[in-house]
Amino acid sequence: MRTLSLWVDRSARPTLQDQLARQIRERIRSGDLAPGDPLPSTRDLASELKLSRNTAVYAYERLISEGYLESAARTGIYVSRSITIPRNTKRPAPAAKALVRSAALHPHLSAPRPFRPCQPDVGLFPLLTWNRMRGRALRNEGRNLLHYQASCIAGFPALRENVATYLRDHRGVRCDSHQVVITSGSQQALFLLSRLLLKPRERVLVEDPGYVEARLAWRHAGARIVPGRVDDQGLVTPRSEHGKIAVIYTTPSRQFPTGVSLSLSRRLALIDFAARTRSWIIEDDYDSELRYGAAPLPSLQSLDASGRLIYTGTFSKLLFPSLRLGYVVVPHELLDRFIELKHLNDDHLPLLDQATLALFLESGAFYSHIRRCRREYAQRHALFLDLFARSGLPLTFEQTDGGMNVVGYLPGGSDDAAWSRRLQDAGFDVPALSHYAIEPARPGLVFGFTAFPAERLRAEFKRMRPILEKAAADRA
Amino acid sequence: MRTLSLWVDRSARPTLQDQLARQIRERIRSGDLAPGDPLPSTRDLASELKLSRNTAVYAYERLISEGYLESAARTGIYVSRSITIPRNTKRPAPAAKALVRSAALHPHLSAPRPFRPCQPDVGLFPLLTWNRMRGRALRNEGRNLLHYQASCIAGFPALRENVATYLRDHRGVRCDSHQVVITSGSQQALFLLSRLLLKPRERVLVEDPGYVEARLAWRHAGARIVPGRVDDQGLVTPRSEHGKIAVIYTTPSRQFPTGVSLSLSRRLALIDFAARTRSWIIEDDYDSELRYGAAPLPSLQSLDASGRLIYTGTFSKLLFPSLRLGYVVVPHELLDRFIELKHLNDDHLPLLDQATLALFLESGAFYSHIRRCRREYAQRHALFLDLFARSGLPLTFEQTDGGMNVVGYLPGGSDDAAWSRRLQDAGFDVPALSHYAIEPARPGLVFGFTAFPAERLRAEFKRMRPILEKAAADRA
Repeated sequence: MRTLSLWVDRSARPTLQDQLARQIRERIRSGDLAPGDPLPSTRDLASELKLSRNTAVYAYERLISEGYLESAARTGIYVSRSITIPRNTKRPAPAAKALVRSAALHPHLSAPRPFRPCQPDVGLFPLLTWNRMRGRALRNEGRNLLHYQASCIAGFPALRENVATYLRDHRGVRCDSHQVVITSGSQQALFLLSRLLLKPRERVLVEDPGYVEARLAWRHAGARIVPGRVDDQGLVTPRSEHGKIAVIYTTPSRQFPTGVSLSLSRRLALIDFAARTRSWIIEDDYDSELRYGAAPLPSLQSLDASGRLIYTGTFSKLLFPSLRLGYVVVPHELLDRFIELKHLNDDHLPLLDQATLALFLESGAFYSHIRRCRREYAQRHALFLDLFARSGLPLTFEQTDGGMNVVGYLPGGSDDAAWSRRLQDAGFDVPALSHYAIEPARPGLVFGFTAFPAERLRAEFKRMRPILEKAAADRA
Repeated sequence: MRTLSLWVDRSARPTLQDQLARQIRERIRSGDLAPGDPLPSTRDLASELKLSRNTAVYAYERLISEGYLESAARTGIYVSRSITIPRNTKRPAPAAKALVRSAALHPHLSAPRPFRPCQPDVGLFPLLTWNRMRGRALRNEGRNLLHYQASCIAGFPALRENVATYLRDHRGVRCDSHQVVITSGSQQALFLLSRLLLKPRERVLVEDPGYVEARLAWRHAGARIVPGRVDDQGLVTPRSEHGKIAVIYTTPSRQFPTGVSLSLSRRLALIDFAARTRSWIIEDDYDSELRYGAAPLPSLQSLDASGRLIYTGTFSKLLFPSLRLGYVVVPHELLDRFIELKHLNDDHLPLLDQATLALFLESGAFYSHIRRCRREYAQRHALFLDLFARSGLPLTFEQTDGGMNVVGYLPGGSDDAAWSRRLQDAGFDVPALSHYAIEPARPGLVFGFTAFPAERLRAEFKRMRPILEKAAADRA
């Protein structure tokens, strides 16, 4: 194996994993590494650079997910053969310039690999109805929908109205439509809040295990992260020993990724804590609609009287993820500053999609779609748990009321990252619970089941089973 | 006053105010209350239901803000006359809640008022072709286009390719497609750069007069703003007396709003300054394609060898503003950090629009559209200047090579803000040059002419002329 002369700088701000990934990417872009070239094993790389092996594993995993590298079962990691680095020597003459067949130039878009968490089945989405609504929106509004609209920085007015009605009627959220701001998924809401609510070095309490991108957004804004333990009643109420906490980020309806619902007494205690300590609560209600038993719990926001609760959610997980539309209900105290920051961040979001979604909600098509998803996903949920129950595999599942994911807990002492890697090598996308954790967590694997129809679930489960059996036998 | 038989349930979870508002909303939706119907006074309602009067007041206020009710001075509260409730007597049961006719409930979207700067004529946009491309993108990519795609955080790959080709061939930008990041207009690029390039209290040099939203983004990120004077050769090269400057923000192709093109010697001097002082240059090439004489100047980026130039632009001004797609060409040194921040900000942008735009570029429809705009706008440009020339009005226009706007300079000592206000009172949208300025500027008015066909230009000019004559006579 030739040496790549990679290096790491332990005093630098980027993580070691970032530094590694960046250098390898550069070697590929510059042509030092060509498609098909092998890379050192993670073991060799780790020992050469005196790194933990996980650091090398994560750097490779990232480059695989970005399409630079690919892994072949049992033979190692290679520079992706489907990558084309421009030869930039000579380019076509003017007329042909733009006529590049994009299909040839970019890797095909991919469907989620099994059993990637939080992925809807986009095959269920009523695309024809959506397209009809889009045509209607264009006819209703005419070409004014193509203009910039200063009145739409916080969102297309009819969409804000319809989202407010939906949230009031279905989630018990107390709001008027002026407080609803349409965002590019809930991620943009979290990002803007991280810039608005925090002074440098202030503390943010996040659920542990929890949603990684939220934690990264807080950290990027300079926050000190306080891990909040999660038990079978959800997030454990913080205590004052933690020091002053500026923001609490939580997923009370169904804790991500464990699926636990925050108990009523904990809800009241959390709201009381926030009111007493004047911290902000951000409630991320990412998949509350997907409950297969009783009616969904009302939101935490519906219990709050302090005005210190910010409620956010997304349509990505109910409709289709590449739509990138979400919403946040902003307390009056923050509203002007939030909208100002939204304006500076990206002005308003695309209007045609927003007008289409407004009609989709208004026409009832949204509610039919949710009912259909709930029905389908409930069956897949039952099937997936049944497949495990009858397999004799040593994974245990705790009762939750639905959502898009289930956690299979592994026997105590298992290395869940190792299980996850074995699955990844075989083409699965099943993150370890430790991937979401800050402090050592009970080992487990997070399976998403919603994106795959019953037949596919059965077939993929059959393919996965021997890998899990082998991992169990090896006591990984 | 007939009774509405409203009621409240004190043991229920929703607030009394919510309960009231909801019931009144339902009565309006169901047709029990018709547009123009009077409502009981808050005093009567409160006494009838044994509520505090504030509860009634807040419920009414909310419904007024939502557009259901309106209040008439001294005569009371009525169901809004501008509301149109669909006649559909029969509704699907569960979804009925959301069936609000949004079109009637929100103010209509507006077209730009004359002569608002930087507005394209969206009537020229080939919407049918665009919709055809959208259909083709869906057929090409299938439902994978609806999934979240980790490979698309920096943009849809084919779009990045096609933008890179366009920029290389038409703007002389030196880049490969990996450096092109698709952003939500150029505003998002500026916002993210303001968070990436600056430490608190560092200095940013901006053109004065210049683009206000950019300046606000810098200021929001904690920058100290250094005004950079603009003369007839464009931005005056900064000198070291200004102290260390971290970032220079400039619009060299056509300075906004004056329209002056940065001279070649100034271009070289600016690049030299940035290389010597290790500052970053951000080149905002917002409307360079709209040049009515010679071929467009190549970008400043094409002259730079230091790797310290960041190039950004937008499709909003060429296609349609509510599309919200732009791009930034990021030097390799910043690329990973920029993409990471983009990821945290809003993940990727909507994929369907991006795939459509990729095909629109690829098919050549983009280039036909630009040629058509250039032809139309050149005529409007000439017409608008001719109307002024023949009017005898005391505004002077300096020679620029095109763009979307012209500046009419006023006689020395005029208060351009006062002129602008008079126009605004008559329904025009013509900002004063001082609106864009930090330090006192030569007085002038900024007119956009592109959004209005010839007949409209003539008619609006005729309407505007007496207002300008009056302002001149009053020596405003």
